[in-house]
Amino acid sequence: MTLRQHLSALFTDLYEVTMAQAYWAQRMSGTAVFETFFRKLPRGRSYVMAAGLADVLDFLEGLRFDEADLHYLRGLGLFSDEFVQWLAGVRFTGDVWAVPEGTVVFPNEPIVQVIAPIVEAQLVETLVLNQIHCQSVLASKAARVVDAARGRVVVDFGARRAHGIDAALTVARTSYLAGATGTSNVLAAREYGIPAFGTMAHSFIQAFGTEIDAFEAFARLYPGTTLLVDTYDTLRGVDRVIELAKRLGQRFDVRAIRLDSGDLGALSKAARARLDTAGLHRVGIFASSGLDEYRVAALLDDGAPIDGFGVGTRLCVAEDAPALDMAYKLVEYAGVGRTKFSSDKVIYPGRKQVFRRIEDGTFAGDTIGEPGEGLADEQLLVPVMKDGRRITGYDAGLEAARAHARQQVDALPPQLHSLEDARWSYPIAVSAGVATELETLRHQQRLVAEEKR
Amino acid sequence: MTLRQHLSALFTDLYEVTMAQAYWAQRMSGTAVFETFFRKLPRGRSYVMAAGLADVLDFLEGLRFDEADLHYLRGLGLFSDEFVQWLAGVRFTGDVWAVPEGTVVFPNEPIVQVIAPIVEAQLVETLVLNQIHCQSVLASKAARVVDAARGRVVVDFGARRAHGIDAALTVARTSYLAGATGTSNVLAAREYGIPAFGTMAHSFIQAFGTEIDAFEAFARLYPGTTLLVDTYDTLRGVDRVIELAKRLGQRFDVRAIRLDSGDLGALSKAARARLDTAGLHRVGIFASSGLDEYRVAALLDDGAPIDGFGVGTRLCVAEDAPALDMAYKLVEYAGVGRTKFSSDKVIYPGRKQVFRRIEDGTFAGDTIGEPGEGLADEQLLVPVMKDGRRITGYDAGLEAARAHARQQVDALPPQLHSLEDARWSYPIAVSAGVATELETLRHQQRLVAEEKR
Repeated sequence: MTLRQHLSALFTDLYEVTMAQAYWAQRMSGTAVFETFFRKLPRGRSYVMAAGLADVLDFLEGLRFDEADLHYLRGLGLFSDEFVQWLAGVRFTGDVWAVPEGTVVFPNEPIVQVIAPIVEAQLVETLVLNQIHCQSVLASKAARVVDAARGRVVVDFGARRAHGIDAALTVARTSYLAGATGTSNVLAAREYGIPAFGTMAHSFIQAFGTEIDAFEAFARLYPGTTLLVDTYDTLRGVDRVIELAKRLGQRFDVRAIRLDSGDLGALSKAARARLDTAGLHRVGIFASSGLDEYRVAALLDDGAPIDGFGVGTRLCVAEDAPALDMAYKLVEYAGVGRTKFSSDKVIYPGRKQVFRRIEDGTFAGDTIGEPGEGLADEQLLVPVMKDGRRITGYDAGLEAARAHARQQVDALPPQLHSLEDARWSYPIAVSAGVATELETLRHQQRLVAEEKR
Repeated sequence: MTLRQHLSALFTDLYEVTMAQAYWAQRMSGTAVFETFFRKLPRGRSYVMAAGLADVLDFLEGLRFDEADLHYLRGLGLFSDEFVQWLAGVRFTGDVWAVPEGTVVFPNEPIVQVIAPIVEAQLVETLVLNQIHCQSVLASKAARVVDAARGRVVVDFGARRAHGIDAALTVARTSYLAGATGTSNVLAAREYGIPAFGTMAHSFIQAFGTEIDAFEAFARLYPGTTLLVDTYDTLRGVDRVIELAKRLGQRFDVRAIRLDSGDLGALSKAARARLDTAGLHRVGIFASSGLDEYRVAALLDDGAPIDGFGVGTRLCVAEDAPALDMAYKLVEYAGVGRTKFSSDKVIYPGRKQVFRRIEDGTFAGDTIGEPGEGLADEQLLVPVMKDGRRITGYDAGLEAARAHARQQVDALPPQLHSLEDARWSYPIAVSAGVATELETLRHQQRLVAEEKR
């Protein structure tokens, strides 16, 4: 997506810019390490699927304040002319380490590490968080829906109720990343090179004199299409499809009917029976209307003969968990580990790596350690940007990320596939090295605090 | 915003385009009336504040398929060359009636009415719903937060956790519309001409050797600033501010301290006491961290001496109600009322108006009627676009919408200000004219269905 590449550098919180001027005024040009992570899994999530990195890297590569941006900043009365002049030359020149998109992550594990002069690293906080948060929230929800659909088709129908244009494009991307078959959103399909799907709306049926005329017009125009049967009376709608099959004979080529209201379980069974009795075994059943992973799983558990699911609202806003407590925190500055101690929000200091043990192809536990600690073969964070440029060969594109995401979900311990709140927690440890560093800083801080008394 | 004006016309669901070709192929060029409304208030909402109209009108005025869009559509193998050629000339030439932004609306009340040749009205469904839904969801949440803050400052801090870039800009806009004082988002502040606010981050404190050095550097640079006191130990942080006041003497000019963790009620009281004892009565207290209308109201009920609130995550994703069941439904085509009967999702046929009774300055009840039925003086839907062009003088801008929004909230019945699920429902009726039209269509439909047996 070029949206992020051409996004104004003013897409940031005001305090990032005021802090930047203060660092600049203090001649603080040391290297900072910021880590993006979340602290707690929300109810209804046993893991998070990381996403958003490609867009973050686009933004970092394109970061610059243009003349209009600088003009606006001058007008705020907060910034000196020299600083604004200096801002004009600011580019992102740092390094980034990150877990590849589609990787499954857990609380306190760094997802993205930004290593750069402190001003640059501070200025990009808002965008990094905005994209990693939103895309990870949406990918995590989609991964659950896809998992619940047990190999059946899942199509993103979220464009109309996603939170704005960017989110509508994103939910198409992250759903595909997480294993969905495609999206209804044409722009997203073009931008990301993913399949576009569509059926028909009630308005189409309503605009025609009769349901069967609407079906016939659509089916003649679109071989292999899907017909929406619930505008007036669902099972009578199914009968109209059967009538159409008789009318068109050999020319009848309809892939599926779509149910969009009512008791989808009972209706799908009744519809399947009528279609089968009419010999229309090859006409599938596609369902939509208020679906999420819980509804999909319940329908399939109940034996509903549904071949595909259109999932909209509850997917596109991640309705049960629309936010994570994701943060972007300074862990090192000028070579020294940094932390904060305010209640209940600990930051582990220093640059870190996540080591994952894998046993028999299944994730067995993670340790958050120091980069050198070699605690397991699998190290989640990899270098993706060096001196402000993407590392060649890192970004293999959405299809590769999708394959990686599937491998990740396949390697989850069985308990994490459960849709219920797992009593079992995936084992996550902090290495002795990291724990010691935190204690050392705590001790120093206590000494400083006592001196000040 | 120009984002919507330059948005590709491909920001639509695929079925809008396949239906458009079917209408075109059938020579169906009659005028359609589509209405946007929601069916049910979600838990935790007693009203919805309508928003998003300005962006919808921008999009409608700019609607066109460019060469890249047409090229992509040709490649899908669904559309004839003639149709794609014809699409190149499609513009939005219809009329729009709508409730002004900031208007309080209730279930089944049309928010936006699109009256246009059916192809045009169908193609814009996705964008109309995406914007009206997202902006109304976010404005409704913000209205509650502002109401709960009882006149205190509310600042949108949502940029980092809103669902993408568009939502981050939108939440700044809709929060301001609903009465917030400003936003932390610099780009949104510039785009919408609203005040930008900022404090400082923990990283700033952490990067300095000591907390007081960080405070001093920031306070010297930014007279009237806000200092974040909870990085290491909140009340010691307050003591550092007091120490700074002594150090700087007359030059000490700090507007507020900010609390961002822990028990905000207890900490604000203890901080207030320390500041007052030190004679710093004019230093206010600004609070953030996990706030929403419930927390804000509870803090104020408890007498917390907090002067302003930074509200982020729970506002920017409307965490407790991130979606409405908002629909865009055909109610009339070629002069004939249209409906559907599928279970539990009734559509009232025909073009409608919302009549609102006002008694002693308070909303007393609404009736959804036919446009001609003069059921009350106050008619919510007004013409905003004619033949594809904004009606001059309609759009008075964000400040006027904000004043309108405030009047609307002030005129709510007292029960609707309650944050708890109201047992009392605002009275909404359907006029005899609309009810009769629905019954007539139901009867006709039964006749058609019986004929077909």
